[in-house]
Amino acid sequence: MNMPVHNVPAGVMLALLEELAAFSAPGPGVTRLLYTPEWYRAQQFLQERWAGLGLKVRTDEVGNVYGTLTGSKVTDKVILTGSHIDTVVNGGRYDGAYGVAAAAAALHYLQVTFGQPLRSLEVVSFCEEEGSRFPLTFWGSGNVTGLYNGSERGSFADVDGVTLGAAMAACGLGGIETSGVGDIAATEGGREFTSSPARRDITAYIELHIEQGIILERNSQEIGVVQAIAGQRRYIVKIGGTANHAGTTPMGLRRDALAGSAEMLLALERSAVAEGDPLVATTGRLEVHPGTPNVIPGEVQFTLDIRHSEAGNLERFCSGILEEFAGIAGRRGLDLEVLPLLATAPAPMDKGMCAALEQICEKQGKSYRSMVSGAGHDAQLFAPLCPAAMIFVPSRGGISHSPDEYSSPEELAAGLEVLTSILYELAYTEN
Amino acid sequence: MNMPVHNVPAGVMLALLEELAAFSAPGPGVTRLLYTPEWYRAQQFLQERWAGLGLKVRTDEVGNVYGTLTGSKVTDKVILTGSHIDTVVNGGRYDGAYGVAAAAAALHYLQVTFGQPLRSLEVVSFCEEEGSRFPLTFWGSGNVTGLYNGSERGSFADVDGVTLGAAMAACGLGGIETSGVGDIAATEGGREFTSSPARRDITAYIELHIEQGIILERNSQEIGVVQAIAGQRRYIVKIGGTANHAGTTPMGLRRDALAGSAEMLLALERSAVAEGDPLVATTGRLEVHPGTPNVIPGEVQFTLDIRHSEAGNLERFCSGILEEFAGIAGRRGLDLEVLPLLATAPAPMDKGMCAALEQICEKQGKSYRSMVSGAGHDAQLFAPLCPAAMIFVPSRGGISHSPDEYSSPEELAAGLEVLTSILYELAYTEN
Repeated sequence: MNMPVHNVPAGVMLALLEELAAFSAPGPGVTRLLYTPEWYRAQQFLQERWAGLGLKVRTDEVGNVYGTLTGSKVTDKVILTGSHIDTVVNGGRYDGAYGVAAAAAALHYLQVTFGQPLRSLEVVSFCEEEGSRFPLTFWGSGNVTGLYNGSERGSFADVDGVTLGAAMAACGLGGIETSGVGDIAATEGGREFTSSPARRDITAYIELHIEQGIILERNSQEIGVVQAIAGQRRYIVKIGGTANHAGTTPMGLRRDALAGSAEMLLALERSAVAEGDPLVATTGRLEVHPGTPNVIPGEVQFTLDIRHSEAGNLERFCSGILEEFAGIAGRRGLDLEVLPLLATAPAPMDKGMCAALEQICEKQGKSYRSMVSGAGHDAQLFAPLCPAAMIFVPSRGGISHSPDEYSSPEELAAGLEVLTSILYELAYTEN
Repeated sequence: MNMPVHNVPAGVMLALLEELAAFSAPGPGVTRLLYTPEWYRAQQFLQERWAGLGLKVRTDEVGNVYGTLTGSKVTDKVILTGSHIDTVVNGGRYDGAYGVAAAAAALHYLQVTFGQPLRSLEVVSFCEEEGSRFPLTFWGSGNVTGLYNGSERGSFADVDGVTLGAAMAACGLGGIETSGVGDIAATEGGREFTSSPARRDITAYIELHIEQGIILERNSQEIGVVQAIAGQRRYIVKIGGTANHAGTTPMGLRRDALAGSAEMLLALERSAVAEGDPLVATTGRLEVHPGTPNVIPGEVQFTLDIRHSEAGNLERFCSGILEEFAGIAGRRGLDLEVLPLLATAPAPMDKGMCAALEQICEKQGKSYRSMVSGAGHDAQLFAPLCPAAMIFVPSRGGISHSPDEYSSPEELAAGLEVLTSILYELAYTEN
């Protein structure tokens, strides 16, 4: 295969990234929460810039912004690329924004260099992925893929009590505040909020993203070709013992909820290490009651976050560790309650696109590795619907969700070149 | 030796206990914090009742209340018995109050039955022991024994910002609010607050108390003869790791402060069990930062509370476990910081008085055991100054510091009888 894409200039992408970073609430790093003024201005800005880059722009009911390069041969299907525009509080300037900026730059480069594609290309800036303002995630891609249908907008509110619907209305979007799920109505001046079915016109989804981990940096590799996005299980584990006087209760007469939890946490770590990569298991929150230095803990609650790229392995590990917890609780005479919070299936990326990406790296002389994404991404919602792929570039120190998030211009440019190449192959060649 | 004390009627004591329980802030159980209106009324009530029982009452600079039965032979020395009147928030009606009520009933019984003692007897209701309102403990006995000298009253404040001195003044006590330690002055109408030296006239201190543990109940024994009050070490342990993404950080690249802490907590428990009674070791508080389910904990802080009745064993255990913590932190690449918070020496009770108490139990046919008090008590402050002794009675379920605190009238009466007997021996016999 020929390789006409080379030395894609990074200037357009870097300028877009630089300009996007300015749309932020005050404070360190970038804070751009869904349906806030800074979010609104960022999406407006993108539409202006994309129009200037020769793309046909539009927004949908929830505020996702698209820029299209219409194909000459196939026009009722699109190849979609992009990422999300929202951030965590005091986040960095690369998470999400990089994939959005690079996708637009790639389409611009392709149009300028090769003219109209055979198949339509579309860049997307998803309105939301992080779950930083409202207690849901993937609001942007979820409304495209059918995870959501819009009826959720009356049921979720931010910490100030503003509903999703009211926040949308404040941005001139079709959402209006309603009192409950499914209570959907049009208002004068507002567009009717359609309980949107999943879009059916997307034939492929490709997302470029920073790794948010340390694997590429540790291995001095430029590109990560994501084979799968890990499935995730979350639980809350409650351990019940007996609160008692730390001085008057002999060791042999204790039902110490914290000592039991410590044994479980160590078992979790040992089992996870034994299972090996890509399994990861984490307890990030743990609360002790009554939490007084001279009282034996009577109750402990902790979270479990367990991820793996293979559904079977994930299931087996979770069952095994919960069984081990039950054994520990039983031996110690502790009460055990496990509340499942979340279960997302692993999302395998498309094998053909992965192979194509690896070929591109080989041909361009870029170092790369096949890897699993432990973090969730918009791509996982497309995986069940169409071929989906993800490209990673290194994150300095593995740091993300922080003002210290950083990837060098050279690293960003390498990712852009790989993205542009795969888009060329998908949209410009008679494959 | 003759045993003239038998069948001490429990009515006076039980009535005092019942009446004392009414002096409480609203809410479950008994809440009687230092220098509050309910505390003030309780101490006033005791002075009235004690006067009615034939005792000579007085209060000291910090609000300890005394009732004296003056001896016929020795009048410049006193045998002191009692406990504290304050409670924890939502505490029970026995902790402290039992020792106060029983001591007054014992003195009353002795006077009625045997007339004036050879040596002066004194009942005390210490103003404070629990540390529930101000961040200090043993304020009552501490001012008697020289732990405090009164200068502390400008330096400690409750959660509402009221200083100890201001709270004293509100009860008509000599304390006035001052801006700093040692800034002591008299005010019109107030007594001058004397930086009191320790009292030198106390020749023995005997305290009757509920066990606040489950050992007597488990062993179906009526009386605990306390051989020593455990020494105590408290520490805050800070573990530093690296906060990182729970999904993107492989198990092998983590510095998980919580997993390291779990290993330490298990080591603590294992070592404490291996050491055996009376050593107890507890982590009652543990805090995780940032405390987010999908973030590997970057920092953990936890408390250590370690007690033993032998100073050497306590020292050896603490050094050993902190060394083990250092080893765990080192192997895991975690930062470790240990802040000593508190170190009190074990307080051995007087061997002669312990032997006398055991003899009394034998003669009265009461089941008893020698034991260590894991909890702190006013008696520990007297142990370095004069012969001190403690008598325990069972606590139902080992429960204390709770509205559910309970000891039966029969159990309370048994303790009263033993207390009365030892006081008789000390004050009425030519020993």
